[in-house]
Amino acid sequence: MFMRVDQLQTELPPPRRADPNAAAALQELLGGKYGEMSTLGNYMFQSFNFRSKSKLKPFYNLVAAITAEELGHVELVSHGIAMLANGPDKPGADEKNGGDVSNAPFEQMKDIRSAASFFSHGGGAVPVNSNSMSWNVDMVTTTGNVVFDLLHNFHLECGARLHKLRVYESLTQDNATGREVCGYLLVRGSVHAHAYALALKKLTGVSIEQMLPTPNIPLDKIPECQKYLVEGSHRRLYTFSNGDYQAMRGIWEGEQALPTDPPGELIVVDGMPEGGKIHDLTGEPCAFTPDYAPEEMFEIAERLTKAAMQGAGSL
Amino acid sequence: MFMRVDQLQTELPPPRRADPNAAAALQELLGGKYGEMSTLGNYMFQSFNFRSKSKLKPFYNLVAAITAEELGHVELVSHGIAMLANGPDKPGADEKNGGDVSNAPFEQMKDIRSAASFFSHGGGAVPVNSNSMSWNVDMVTTTGNVVFDLLHNFHLECGARLHKLRVYESLTQDNATGREVCGYLLVRGSVHAHAYALALKKLTGVSIEQMLPTPNIPLDKIPECQKYLVEGSHRRLYTFSNGDYQAMRGIWEGEQALPTDPPGELIVVDGMPEGGKIHDLTGEPCAFTPDYAPEEMFEIAERLTKAAMQGAGSL
Amino acid sequence: MFMRVDQLQTELPPPRRADPNAAAALQELLGGKYGEMSTLGNYMFQSFNFRSKSKLKPFYNLVAAITAEELGHVELVSHGIAMLANGPDKPGADEKNGGDVSNAPFEQMKDIRSAASFFSHGGGAVPVNSNSMSWNVDMVTTTGNVVFDLLHNFHLECGARLHKLRVYESLTQDNATGREVCGYLLVRGSVHAHAYALALKKLTGVSIEQMLPTPNIPLDKIPECQKYLVEGSHRRLYTFSNGDYQAMRGIWEGEQALPTDPPGELIVVDGMPEGGKIHDLTGEPCAFTPDYAPEEMFEIAERLTKAAMQGAGSL
Amino acid sequence: MFMRVDQLQTELPPPRRADPNAAAALQELLGGKYGEMSTLGNYMFQSFNFRSKSKLKPFYNLVAAITAEELGHVELVSHGIAMLANGPDKPGADEKNGGDVSNAPFEQMKDIRSAASFFSHGGGAVPVNSNSMSWNVDMVTTTGNVVFDLLHNFHLECGARLHKLRVYESLTQDNATGREVCGYLLVRGSVHAHAYALALKKLTGVSIEQMLPTPNIPLDKIPECQKYLVEGSHRRLYTFSNGDYQAMRGIWEGEQALPTDPPGELIVVDGMPEGGKIHDLTGEPCAFTPDYAPEEMFEIAERLTKAAMQGAGSL
Amino acid sequence: MFMRVDQLQTELPPPRRADPNAAAALQELLGGKYGEMSTLGNYMFQSFNFRSKSKLKPFYNLVAAITAEELGHVELVSHGIAMLANGPDKPGADEKNGGDVSNAPFEQMKDIRSAASFFSHGGGAVPVNSNSMSWNVDMVTTTGNVVFDLLHNFHLECGARLHKLRVYESLTQDNATGREVCGYLLVRGSVHAHAYALALKKLTGVSIEQMLPTPNIPLDKIPECQKYLVEGSHRRLYTFSNGDYQAMRGIWEGEQALPTDPPGELIVVDGMPEGGKIHDLTGEPCAFTPDYAPEEMFEIAERLTKAAMQGAGSL
Amino acid sequence: MFMRVDQLQTELPPPRRADPNAAAALQELLGGKYGEMSTLGNYMFQSFNFRSKSKLKPFYNLVAAITAEELGHVELVSHGIAMLANGPDKPGADEKNGGDVSNAPFEQMKDIRSAASFFSHGGGAVPVNSNSMSWNVDMVTTTGNVVFDLLHNFHLECGARLHKLRVYESLTQDNATGREVCGYLLVRGSVHAHAYALALKKLTGVSIEQMLPTPNIPLDKIPECQKYLVEGSHRRLYTFSNGDYQAMRGIWEGEQALPTDPPGELIVVDGMPEGGKIHDLTGEPCAFTPDYAPEEMFEIAERLTKAAMQGAGSL
Repeated sequence: MFMRVDQLQTELPPPRRADPNAAAALQELLGGKYGEMSTLGNYMFQSFNFRSKSKLKPFYNLVAAITAEELGHVELVSHGIAMLANGPDKPGADEKNGGDVSNAPFEQMKDIRSAASFFSHGGGAVPVNSNSMSWNVDMVTTTGNVVFDLLHNFHLECGARLHKLRVYESLTQDNATGREVCGYLLVRGSVHAHAYALALKKLTGVSIEQMLPTPNIPLDKIPECQKYLVEGSHRRLYTFSNGDYQAMRGIWEGEQALPTDPPGELIVVDGMPEGGKIHDLTGEPCAFTPDYAPEEMFEIAERLTKAAMQGAGSL
Repeated sequence: MFMRVDQLQTELPPPRRADPNAAAALQELLGGKYGEMSTLGNYMFQSFNFRSKSKLKPFYNLVAAITAEELGHVELVSHGIAMLANGPDKPGADEKNGGDVSNAPFEQMKDIRSAASFFSHGGGAVPVNSNSMSWNVDMVTTTGNVVFDLLHNFHLECGARLHKLRVYESLTQDNATGREVCGYLLVRGSVHAHAYALALKKLTGVSIEQMLPTPNIPLDKIPECQKYLVEGSHRRLYTFSNGDYQAMRGIWEGEQALPTDPPGELIVVDGMPEGGKIHDLTGEPCAFTPDYAPEEMFEIAERLTKAAMQGAGSL
Repeated sequence: MFMRVDQLQTELPPPRRADPNAAAALQELLGGKYGEMSTLGNYMFQSFNFRSKSKLKPFYNLVAAITAEELGHVELVSHGIAMLANGPDKPGADEKNGGDVSNAPFEQMKDIRSAASFFSHGGGAVPVNSNSMSWNVDMVTTTGNVVFDLLHNFHLECGARLHKLRVYESLTQDNATGREVCGYLLVRGSVHAHAYALALKKLTGVSIEQMLPTPNIPLDKIPECQKYLVEGSHRRLYTFSNGDYQAMRGIWEGEQALPTDPPGELIVVDGMPEGGKIHDLTGEPCAFTPDYAPEEMFEIAERLTKAAMQGAGSL
Repeated sequence: MFMRVDQLQTELPPPRRADPNAAAALQELLGGKYGEMSTLGNYMFQSFNFRSKSKLKPFYNLVAAITAEELGHVELVSHGIAMLANGPDKPGADEKNGGDVSNAPFEQMKDIRSAASFFSHGGGAVPVNSNSMSWNVDMVTTTGNVVFDLLHNFHLECGARLHKLRVYESLTQDNATGREVCGYLLVRGSVHAHAYALALKKLTGVSIEQMLPTPNIPLDKIPECQKYLVEGSHRRLYTFSNGDYQAMRGIWEGEQALPTDPPGELIVVDGMPEGGKIHDLTGEPCAFTPDYAPEEMFEIAERLTKAAMQGAGSL
Repeated sequence: MFMRVDQLQTELPPPRRADPNAAAALQELLGGKYGEMSTLGNYMFQSFNFRSKSKLKPFYNLVAAITAEELGHVELVSHGIAMLANGPDKPGADEKNGGDVSNAPFEQMKDIRSAASFFSHGGGAVPVNSNSMSWNVDMVTTTGNVVFDLLHNFHLECGARLHKLRVYESLTQDNATGREVCGYLLVRGSVHAHAYALALKKLTGVSIEQMLPTPNIPLDKIPECQKYLVEGSHRRLYTFSNGDYQAMRGIWEGEQALPTDPPGELIVVDGMPEGGKIHDLTGEPCAFTPDYAPEEMFEIAERLTKAAMQGAGSL
Repeated sequence: MFMRVDQLQTELPPPRRADPNAAAALQELLGGKYGEMSTLGNYMFQSFNFRSKSKLKPFYNLVAAITAEELGHVELVSHGIAMLANGPDKPGADEKNGGDVSNAPFEQMKDIRSAASFFSHGGGAVPVNSNSMSWNVDMVTTTGNVVFDLLHNFHLECGARLHKLRVYESLTQDNATGREVCGYLLVRGSVHAHAYALALKKLTGVSIEQMLPTPNIPLDKIPECQKYLVEGSHRRLYTFSNGDYQAMRGIWEGEQALPTDPPGELIVVDGMPEGGKIHDLTGEPCAFTPDYAPEEMFEIAERLTKAAMQGAGSL
């Protein structure tokens, strides 16, 4: 089972301007072969299909817990995409109707790379890559052979790192939203690569973690990674659980940070990171989000919220 | 963010025999257009892309919370698939090597409907339908228009109900595993259909819940649904959260069960259902799951688990 | 624009028994690369995209008129599929509710080749091939170059002929429904191959019609083709219109039947063939088609039909 | 069976200039999930697979007749696409050869969003969306359950309306061709949404038509819709047939226009709308449409047309 | 550039009987994610896209040379598929016409798993997996980062080994053709896994070859591998070239066979293996291969062959 | 079997500047329906699946030999793509590390048509078309019917010619690389169209080669074709073999060049064309190709190359 927390794993700075092509670039990190839907899909189905769970607890726990983190990565990139496609929140902008729709208010959408992302999703995220190709089962490997699946996962995280780096390199410095997404994911993805490497080392004796970082650029070259390194995020694995998945400590704890990262012992944290707030994503009535004339909808929602709070209070 | 609990939403009875075609039938409920990957994918991306969240809290909360439940549905069906593909757990069967692989130990896999499910996934679940076609973005609707997305979701849940019923009708009575999956999901899917109907009613004034059940067969015709009806599952929505998503009460609470179901008031439960245990899915060395000769792997895992427990104790 | 006539292009004998795998075989002729969705899709988009229509009237007319016939072929194969998947009509079988659904009434559907055709479509036809792969744009060629598009169409019809022959060869003699579909389409497909050949000959001077029949088996080897040959169907092109597309006569008329077919002059017929009646496809409440307990639905429909007839009378 | 009429359902104003990205935007309305290929594909296969036709005539007739109209919508959007991709007709431009092809006459095609639409289709329409993704079977729902299929269709038409609105908003006022396509389809799509709503109301008693319009913007906000509203198009359903499908009157007649549209009684019209002329789409020899040096081709066509006219006269 | 030799890399024993489902099983090794089209596609495009070739010669040469071997693997599996789908060659069976096609000569094809493989390809191989899903670009990784691409390739070969083993386990002992394909490919695939491991070791210092074999079953458990081990195939890399790609020796030579294989030094062989003869694949006129009545075709071919031989002699 | 030669079939002039959209245009000729992956895929599988090879030698040989040439075409276009995506080789540019990656060094990649070609492939070629849609099995026809497959191939080559012409027309004169690719392929593709036409003529008696050239623009209109015409490339078929495939002479030799091309006798050449050198494709450390800090990698490679040369010497 999965529980949900109404927060992002880290807070994203608001976008300064709408940049649909930057949003489309981030889509590579959501629905591309080496994107977050792929890390999620691989680990999720591997954890469901895991054989002899009771006898391979540390390995099962590792894959199961990282699955939960990947859900949050999918969430984080998706928010980044929606925010960049739509631009800065304009409080109150959703309080009138959409006005005159006959003056081509979305003329620019005709020329963006992923026009369907506006026509169909109103700028929202969907599981496709930067060229609008759908994520699909061909991006899922779950053979049930533990060494092979772990090796696959190690390769997947290295590939994901490369893709994040390149997307990052396409985003200008004033795109704080997109770069924060990349910076955070680079740190966390490096943790996962490291974790799968250590799991393989325990099973095979091969010091495959010495291949890291791949590509061979240390995280200290990425300004957006620094605050996470300083707080030690690169040394922490979360269980993303209340008490389950403890056996993964056997793989991660007792080991050290990678030589190219700030030194220190690796630790498993029970639970999840502190998290940051979720963007409101103010609607745009002209785009029919949440609708052309949403005022009445807001009133209804307010009434229901009040009723809910009273109901909740009375329970 | 999402947290994970090492349990299924309900406990599945073990399979009496391997039945790969029944597993493939269940795949329709996992990766088909009206399967759980679709309900998950639709609600998850809708919740990420939701506009004017602060002003539409009850509706945002509803979609967000059901997303978390759908993750557990994806998990439940996946376990059902893996269990049926692989047959009864045989404790200890994973403790020797795979023996002589040259006598075609998997001859029967050549003729099953979804041969790749064995060749590639060792009988595990993947996001495809009963004909092995991949789940993909064409099954995701997330327009940002709230009334339309809710209408879509209402239609999706009705369609999901129809597909579950037909898959159920293809499973014989000795297939307790597969039928339990269907029975549980029929009850919970009916709750979701009802919830989206009520959300639409609040917004539009149309009593669309009167269209339920669609198809017009009441749950009392399905033996496997009865215990869930008795315990009132059809009247409960879970927040699948520790404290978030309370505003959804405004939509669900104060309303009554559908006339064709056992009567009573609808209630929102903070948190999740009690849950059931996860199958061990004993490995089959001959299929290289977890590997051909996994003994050493088990010893390593045992050692790491002990270390983890000691480490956990010392923290 | 297109008008619709509530008839099939030829009448299909009812099936003696349900044969879902035979239905799946016919799907190759519906949604396969060389199936009717492809002939329809190619000619339809070619006719829309046709350049310099006014100066190339006979060629534009030919492609446009055959498009309309292909619509009827898509319809014919679809009916054949639905009939074979569902078996003989049982009048009155739809008049009670679906009874006890808990005895696996569709156990056999678990093992058919295209299980999703039952789970998802209740045995109905959809645009996929015999292996459930979707028809898609890769099967459409519409370059705007007239000679090339005609050459493509000629090749497409020859390929379609080959596929029809092989599907025919997989259907036993007691499968009158499926064999009639093949027999009729073989005759009409041969007409189209001939027509595209003559169009090419007029434009290029190459007697490409001398390549026919490809594959080189004459129609007289197929018993189900005989009645159509006797009535001269192989010599007729229809305009499928009331008065339009007359210029196609310039390509077809004045020419002779192929040497391997019954001799005679080729003629263009204004309008459409006589047609045959459409199968009722009695519902199966147990499969929720039209629903689990459809009686009330029938009463409503009867009432509305009466109202319609009165309304129609009063206009 | 289907008959064809060499006219569009409404006449499209000629484009003022080529705008391949606008053509690509219109592709969303052709091959997108909520485009005309989808409405066509859904209703066409539903009508083929319809169960118990004789007992559910009004509903079968409704779906069958709207299918024929959707064919004309596919045609209309396709013409809009080809016209916008190719720009204004230049009479006589097709009368010389294509000249010097070595000066990159189509340099601009390298940078348009859908380059393949030129390379492969010479600017013609094909069944893909605005991002070039193919239409496919995942966009077809045909379960055989009548209430559910109608509910799906209702949702589909609402979704189609939303997509049309957004595409419309991306087209500037000088793009009369594209906006006319949207305006006409918005009116007709609203009719279909209304019709499916009334069908559902008759079957279930739920006044689902009160959800219309969704999105909640009335048609009077769209200038291009006005002439169609004035002539009452929003109150008319066509049978697109000569005498068949009369029972659909039972669903539509006797009801009133939606409150947000000009008032009046709903009526069923036997046959089709008046229609408008089809664009010639003058060839561009330089793009090899109809060919590099088409003069001889035109002479041949002229000769054949004459022969046809004489032949027709003599019959 | 590539040259072709009219031989297989090893000779395949003829099939004893047609077994279309076994052919379909082998398709997993042709068009599956871990099949030969994937190894070919990955290495081919990596070799085309290889950066700084002159400075990374040994690595470029390795990928380039293995590409050529993979072409032969694609060929070998394809022949295995066609042979198993079609059964034993029956010399002379192609010398009459196809006889009476109206007695359902291919009735059994209706029920095989991959019916389209007969309808569309006459039993021939195509790039799809064992469930008929197409090979596609999602199975190609070519990032240009050398360490990562080599890591991907190492993982790919291990995955390919696992899939070959499982397909092998589904083929009975009387299926000498299919088992020979698996046995040969297992030996050669192990060589490739070893080669990529050594390349990674040279670049990173990590002894990743110690992870082999993965899955951890030694080749000596597979009878069909023994003759290749005896002749030392597991120690040989071929340049598949006349003089190019010599620098790959720097990676492979000087190293030893894996501990689980017969010991000995690794060697690079200039050129290709000895090879075996290609199956004639006698046509079946009844299936229209090479055609319904091919006698005349054979006469023409004989005449042309004679002319060719004379022409060749005279040059 | 296939051998590899470390050369291109013709030498490509280096690009003057990077032009990712031009590279994407060339992708149409690589992975489009009428691109080189399609000619390769069709002929390769046809040659594997060829029936009654011994009795149809000239035809089998023709398809088999052209397959080998198509491999080189896939290679040639791929090199053109990678060169245009990456721009001129800058010797030494790969000798330092990638510097500061935080200044958006690849900002422009965010806006190119095929952003994933940079993010995922570092500008390398992959089997997709100009809109990033994957090549797949729907583009392969291999029926086993010889006349039909040859007819298909004839049509395929004509279609390929049309696509090459249009891509050529989108490339400006300063794009010598891309235009050379088109020019060379136009000449060689014309040879293949001619060859399939003659094969069909021998089999059927139809002078289908008189349809050539299609589109009807002679090669002398394309400056980049001239040097190849002068050297007689249009009259030469290569066996791409050392001694095999001689029987194809019976189809090609004894015939004459097309009337629109320079006159002369057609000849079969044993072996391959002279070939040109392969581009080094200097790495870009900033894009992690071959890596961020590749110096050490180059040293290792140099050492291994030396060892290889000594080893080779000592063998």
